[in-house]
Amino acid sequence: MKHARVAYDGLIQEATVNGDGVQLLDGRLVTEDEVVWLPPVQPNTIFALGLNYADHAKELSFSAVQEEPLVFFKGPNTLIGHKGKTVRPNDVTFMHYECELAVVLGKQGKHIQQAEAYDYVRGYTVANDYAIRDYLENYYRPNLRVKNRDGCTPIGPWLVDKEDVHDPMNLTLRTYINGKKTQDGTTADMLLSIPQLIEYLSSFMTLYPGDIILTGTPKGSVDTVVGDEVVTEIEGVGRLVNTVVGEEVLQNS
Amino acid sequence: MKHARVAYDGLIQEATVNGDGVQLLDGRLVTEDEVVWLPPVQPNTIFALGLNYADHAKELSFSAVQEEPLVFFKGPNTLIGHKGKTVRPNDVTFMHYECELAVVLGKQGKHIQQAEAYDYVRGYTVANDYAIRDYLENYYRPNLRVKNRDGCTPIGPWLVDKEDVHDPMNLTLRTYINGKKTQDGTTADMLLSIPQLIEYLSSFMTLYPGDIILTGTPKGSVDTVVGDEVVTEIEGVGRLVNTVVGEEVLQNS
Repeated sequence: MKHARVAYDGLIQEATVNGDGVQLLDGRLVTEDEVVWLPPVQPNTIFALGLNYADHAKELSFSAVQEEPLVFFKGPNTLIGHKGKTVRPNDVTFMHYECELAVVLGKQGKHIQQAEAYDYVRGYTVANDYAIRDYLENYYRPNLRVKNRDGCTPIGPWLVDKEDVHDPMNLTLRTYINGKKTQDGTTADMLLSIPQLIEYLSSFMTLYPGDIILTGTPKGSVDTVVGDEVVTEIEGVGRLVNTVVGEEVLQNS
Repeated sequence: MKHARVAYDGLIQEATVNGDGVQLLDGRLVTEDEVVWLPPVQPNTIFALGLNYADHAKELSFSAVQEEPLVFFKGPNTLIGHKGKTVRPNDVTFMHYECELAVVLGKQGKHIQQAEAYDYVRGYTVANDYAIRDYLENYYRPNLRVKNRDGCTPIGPWLVDKEDVHDPMNLTLRTYINGKKTQDGTTADMLLSIPQLIEYLSSFMTLYPGDIILTGTPKGSVDTVVGDEVVTEIEGVGRLVNTVVGEEVLQNS
């Protein structure tokens, strides 16, 4: 089942999405255009992976061999829902999209073993973890100016229950800029799998329901400019639409 | 005024603290030993500074000259209240305390100038931002195993309104292990001041009420072992007590 959080008729509502439209929990059925799509999860901790696909690491001229997972945090200010607008700062040279499978946890745990890791997963959604490449000095520091701007991480449109995703480690990821395909990869190419990431993180800290793990992006991440429509899509999970705007758009709205 | 969050009589209660004891908002006056002290703030984003005192950077053999502020995030799992117990992992060699002034924001803002920065501050509290030094490879990566263990950041006992702290950039910080003073510094030695940090962070992201900035620690950060009582104290703000315990203590409790 697909679970969404939407704003409609003066309220934030939980909803499910099917072929007929958006089914609000109060019983009303509305169309996808009638709602404001919010991030499908209210996050607790947001983890993100750097360089978790070998081809993307190579593209950025970093070695794919790491001592340990390159995990960093993102603040809640970064999330924005489906069909949202993301600002391209006026003073930067590179703003790359990154299509990523987002794993949403549903159960508290520590010292989770790989074999049980999926028991702690609630489901999946799509994220576009934009990066301001100007400031990415080296792989030890995914710094805040690169990865933590307001609304720089579109996520959604919905969360898909894990039961509806047959093999999360074998899903096609694709990105389209203004309808043209620019990224085409598969989660099979992740260096660290979902169970490995859950085992690693929970080896030294507790994971909670609502924690989100952004699992990294394959190669094909290129610059976007103001006016671009960026669609990140993962097979069997969802198709997430975002528009890149200039700073002045939000200042004037 | 000193604002605390405490658990008492089956509830989480807001309270104020004065010479008479803990004044619950429901009117009851109780003693400091009758309550469980919780972190005084429910955090939004938790920022922390690395190497924000020159003498501490030198102590760790890092250059104090940085291209930009070494800011990183901490997860909500890290916070624990006054008189709490923090686990020293059994398999590590170095667990250093770090007495830090914690700045709590009270107002939303972006592109805040230094001259207005204190308008966005609600108040101050004391934090002990423990670090597992084993994994601190270099200053670009304050990694999760160093700084993000469960309960590794005692904070409190209370939040002091900014109006009651005359000059936050001139406060004595001291740490005592089992009653012996081991750290003695002043916030006057910060490399980046509170207004500079607020200006920097808000230059690229929105700051929100409940955001916490841990402003770094001066020199004198040494190893702690199981059984130690670690008291971090900041003049005019508070005296925060924490006990270091082994992993087995929490597993058996």
